[in-house]
Amino acid sequence: MRMKLKLFTAAATAIFFTGGAMAQPSPQGPAAAVSAARDYHYQNGAQIVKNFSDLLAIPNDALDAENIRLNAETIAHLFSERGFAMQLLEQDGAPPLIYGSLETLGATRTIAIYVHYDGQPTEDADWTFPPFEPVLYSKAMSDGGEIIPFPVPGDVIDPDWRIYARSASDDKAPFAALLAAIDALQESNIAFTSNIKLIFDGEEERGSDHLDDYLAAHADKFSDIDLWLFCDGPGHQSGNPQLVFGVRGVTGLGVTVYGPNRGLHSGHYGNWAPGPGWRLSRLLGSMKAADGNVLIKDFYKSAEPISALDRAAIAAAPAPDDRLRKLFGMAETEASNAPLGERIMIPALNLRGLKSAEVGSKARNVIPPSASASIGIRLVKGNDPSAMIDLVEDHIRRQGYHIVREDPDVKTRAKYPLIAKVERESGYPAMKSRMDDPMVAPLIDALRAAAGDLILAPMLGGSLPLYMFEEASDAPIVILPIANFDNNQHSADENIRLGNLFYGIEAYAAMLVME
Amino acid sequence: MRMKLKLFTAAATAIFFTGGAMAQPSPQGPAAAVSAARDYHYQNGAQIVKNFSDLLAIPNDALDAENIRLNAETIAHLFSERGFAMQLLEQDGAPPLIYGSLETLGATRTIAIYVHYDGQPTEDADWTFPPFEPVLYSKAMSDGGEIIPFPVPGDVIDPDWRIYARSASDDKAPFAALLAAIDALQESNIAFTSNIKLIFDGEEERGSDHLDDYLAAHADKFSDIDLWLFCDGPGHQSGNPQLVFGVRGVTGLGVTVYGPNRGLHSGHYGNWAPGPGWRLSRLLGSMKAADGNVLIKDFYKSAEPISALDRAAIAAAPAPDDRLRKLFGMAETEASNAPLGERIMIPALNLRGLKSAEVGSKARNVIPPSASASIGIRLVKGNDPSAMIDLVEDHIRRQGYHIVREDPDVKTRAKYPLIAKVERESGYPAMKSRMDDPMVAPLIDALRAAAGDLILAPMLGGSLPLYMFEEASDAPIVILPIANFDNNQHSADENIRLGNLFYGIEAYAAMLVME
Repeated sequence: MRMKLKLFTAAATAIFFTGGAMAQPSPQGPAAAVSAARDYHYQNGAQIVKNFSDLLAIPNDALDAENIRLNAETIAHLFSERGFAMQLLEQDGAPPLIYGSLETLGATRTIAIYVHYDGQPTEDADWTFPPFEPVLYSKAMSDGGEIIPFPVPGDVIDPDWRIYARSASDDKAPFAALLAAIDALQESNIAFTSNIKLIFDGEEERGSDHLDDYLAAHADKFSDIDLWLFCDGPGHQSGNPQLVFGVRGVTGLGVTVYGPNRGLHSGHYGNWAPGPGWRLSRLLGSMKAADGNVLIKDFYKSAEPISALDRAAIAAAPAPDDRLRKLFGMAETEASNAPLGERIMIPALNLRGLKSAEVGSKARNVIPPSASASIGIRLVKGNDPSAMIDLVEDHIRRQGYHIVREDPDVKTRAKYPLIAKVERESGYPAMKSRMDDPMVAPLIDALRAAAGDLILAPMLGGSLPLYMFEEASDAPIVILPIANFDNNQHSADENIRLGNLFYGIEAYAAMLVME
Repeated sequence: MRMKLKLFTAAATAIFFTGGAMAQPSPQGPAAAVSAARDYHYQNGAQIVKNFSDLLAIPNDALDAENIRLNAETIAHLFSERGFAMQLLEQDGAPPLIYGSLETLGATRTIAIYVHYDGQPTEDADWTFPPFEPVLYSKAMSDGGEIIPFPVPGDVIDPDWRIYARSASDDKAPFAALLAAIDALQESNIAFTSNIKLIFDGEEERGSDHLDDYLAAHADKFSDIDLWLFCDGPGHQSGNPQLVFGVRGVTGLGVTVYGPNRGLHSGHYGNWAPGPGWRLSRLLGSMKAADGNVLIKDFYKSAEPISALDRAAIAAAPAPDDRLRKLFGMAETEASNAPLGERIMIPALNLRGLKSAEVGSKARNVIPPSASASIGIRLVKGNDPSAMIDLVEDHIRRQGYHIVREDPDVKTRAKYPLIAKVERESGYPAMKSRMDDPMVAPLIDALRAAAGDLILAPMLGGSLPLYMFEEASDAPIVILPIANFDNNQHSADENIRLGNLFYGIEAYAAMLVME
C-alpha cells in the first residue's frame, strides 16, 4: 500500500515508497496521473530542483529588458522541447508574451494556462542572499532553517526544504511544476485530455499594461478557450491547497505634498515654514480610521454585495486568523479581528510606502521640501480602478488641496497653500467566476486526487489581470495556486517550500488528464 | 573719497578703490581696521578664496574620524602660523577640540571665539557637485548663476559670486574670514585690543556631545573669559548683518511604529494586516494642527515669556516674511503668516523625515513591517530637552501606544496592538543673553564700523551649544553670523556668497580692535 504524501501542508511526513515495473498499457485518469507524478518527482527530485534553480538565477524585473527576454527565450525553449508550438509575441516597449499550444488527439476542450515570468522589483539590501542566487534551506529561515547543499540524484528530498530566490513562488514555481508534470505523464504514457494553450506574461508585477493589447492583437488564438487556468498566488493560509474563483483588482496612486521649495534649516525656519511631513500625515490620517475603516466618501459604495454561495464557502474554509496573527506578530488585526476571508471580499486602501528626507542616523535638521506616499488600492467586483482613484482625489481636494500632475511651478506655489501632486497608476478590475460553473467540476474532481482537503475559495486577496480574459470570452476562470502562503511574496527572502512544488507537479498532472 | 562697499546685502555694487602708501604710525581702532581689511581682501581676494577652497575640500562629517582630525590639524596649523598658541584637546571617541590663545600687551579683556569645523552629513545624490569639491558660481544657482573659474591674483571679485561646498557657510567661512582679518591687521600694523582664546568644536552638527566634558576638563582655560563670541549661523533674512543674543536649544527623537513582523503581500493581507504607515500618519497627525499649533499637552508651558526689550528689537528689525515666502515658494506660512521673528521665540516641533518601505517607481505592493519618523524639537529659554521629549512620549502613550526602546520581541508584539519605539536623542537647552549688557556695547560700536545697518536680534532660530558657556561663566554670549541667509545650510548645495565672506573679514577685524 502506498502512503499519501502530505506534500502541501507544513507538517513533515515520513516518506515511504514502493517501486515496481511500469504496467502496459498505462492506467489513465487523475489518480494515475498523481501517482505517476509522485513517482517522477521522487526519482528526479534533484534534477527538478536544479532546473528550477537555473531558471530562478535569471533576473526577472520586468524593467530589465535584456534579462526578461532571456527568461522568455529560456521558458519557450523548455516547452518547445516538450512538443509545444511556442511563439514570443511582441509589442514595442513591452516584454514578450510567451504563447504556446498543443493539440490533443480527440480532445473536445481547450484549456489555457497562464503563468507570469517576471518578478517583483528587488531591494538587494533587505535580502539575506542576492535575490537571483538561489539558496536551499533545511526549513524556513524564520523557523531556524539552515543552509544545505542542493541535492544530488539519489538524495531523499524533505518536503520542508525551501529554495530562497526572487520568484521562487511568485511566479516561476508553476513553470517548474508544469514542466515536471508533463515529463511525468510522458514518461508514464498517460495521455492529456485537453488541448492546451500557454500564456506566459512578462510584466504582471508591473501591472500587465500591455496584456490587453496582446489579447486584442491575437484574439483568434484565444477565442476557442473553454477554461482559463491561472497558476499564481499562494495556497490557503490554513496550509491546505485551494482552488480560487476570483481575484481582487488593483490600482494605486502616488501622493506628494510640499513645504518650502528647498530644504530649510529647521532651526531658522522651524515653526514658520510648514513641514510637508506634517501635512502628509494629516492628509493620510484623514483617509483611514484606527479600526481599519476607510473614511474616503463612497469608497465602499460600488462594491458588489457578497453572494450567499461565497459566504458559505468562506464559512466552510478553516479560519487561519489566530495562527496568522501569531505568525506575523500582531496582537490585533483590522476591524477588531474581523476574519481575513471576509476582509478580502471588500476593497482595501494600502499605504505601500512613505518618504520624506531621511530618518534615523541619516536624519538632518531640515524642513524637507516634500513628503510622498505610495497608496495601493485593492478592488472587488463592481469597483472601477479609475473611479476609485477619483474618490481618493476628491477626498484630497476636500482636505483643501489643489491637485497637480507635475511638481508645482512658482505661480502655482504662490497661489495655493496646500498642493498635492497625484500620480495615477494604471490598474485593472477584479474578476469573479461562479463557484458552480459546470466546466470547473471535472477540475475540482481531478485536483482532489492530488489534494483531498482542497479548499474552494471565492476570492484571492491578491490581484491578477483576469478581467481581460473575462472580457475576452465566456469561459470560466479559476486560479490554482501551489505556493506556500508564507513565501515572502513581494518581499525580501521570497521562497518556496519544496513540498508545495511537488504538490504542484501532482496537481498539474491531474489537471492535464481531468475527465 | 572711498565708497562704502555693500558687501553683505545681495545687491551688486561697483567697486572703487584708492590705493596709496601706508602711513606711519598706522591709524588704530575699528574704522581703520575695517579699512585695512577692505584693502586686504581687495588685493588678496584670489588667495583668500583659494585658501578657503582648500579647507572646504577636506570632508568634515563628525563621524569621519580620519578626515575630521585632518581638519583639526590643518586649522590649528593655520592659527599657529599667525602667532596663536594652539592645542588639540582630546577625549576618547570624540573629535579633538581645537584650543588656541593669544596674549595682547596691555589688554584688560579676554574674548573667546567659537567656530565649529565639522559639517552636516551629506547626501551626495542631492548635490549638483560632490559636496567636498568646491565649485564657484557667478551668482546663486537658483538665480541662474553659472560655473566660473576660480579667480587668479589681479581678478576683481564680484561679491555676488558663490562658493558651493559643504560647510562653505556652516561653519568654515568664519575660519577663512578670521584668518584673513588677522592677516590684514598684521599687514597694517593695527594692534589687537583684547586677549583672544579660540575654541573650535568638531561635532557641533552631531550635537556637541563631548563639549561639556571638554569644558569641565579644561575649566582653567575658560575661567577668565569676559565675552564669548560665537561665529556661526546666517545673517538676517532681510539681507542685513546681525548680532544675535540668543539661540534656540535643540533635541529630537526617532519614532518607529509597527505592522506585521515582515513585509506582507498587500493583496492577500491588505485590509486585514494593519499598515504601519497609517498608524504613523494618525500618530503624527495628532501632534500638530494644520495652523502650526503643537497639540502635545504642555508643549508651550515651560517656555519663558518674551521680554519687552526683545519684543521691541523684533519690531525694529525689517520683517523679511513676504520676501521669504516668495523666495521659498510658499503661499502661506504657519499660524496664518505669523512673523518669523515671533515664531522663533517659541519652541518648535519639526518633522525631519519619514520612511516606510519605498515610494514612486520603487514602491511595491507590500504592507511594510514598520514606519519611522524623525522629529526635531527646537527649544527656547525654560525648555528642558529631556522634559520636552517626555511630553512627546506622554502624548504617544495617550494615543494608545506601548513604548519600547528596541524593536519589539514576540511577547511584546503579542501583548500590545500599538507599539512605538522611541529613540531619544541628546540635545541642549537654549541660551539667551541680555541685549543691554555693557560688555557688548563696544562690540556693537565696532561692528557698526563694518556694517552701518546692523540688526540686533534677540534670538537665532538655529541652535548652538551655548548654554554650556552660560553655565561656565557669567560672561555674556553673543553670536556674530556672517553667512548669507540663503546658504542652503544643512541641505544640498550649501554655499557662501563671497560678499558675505568679505563682510566677515571686515567685521572680525573691527571686533579684534574694538574699544
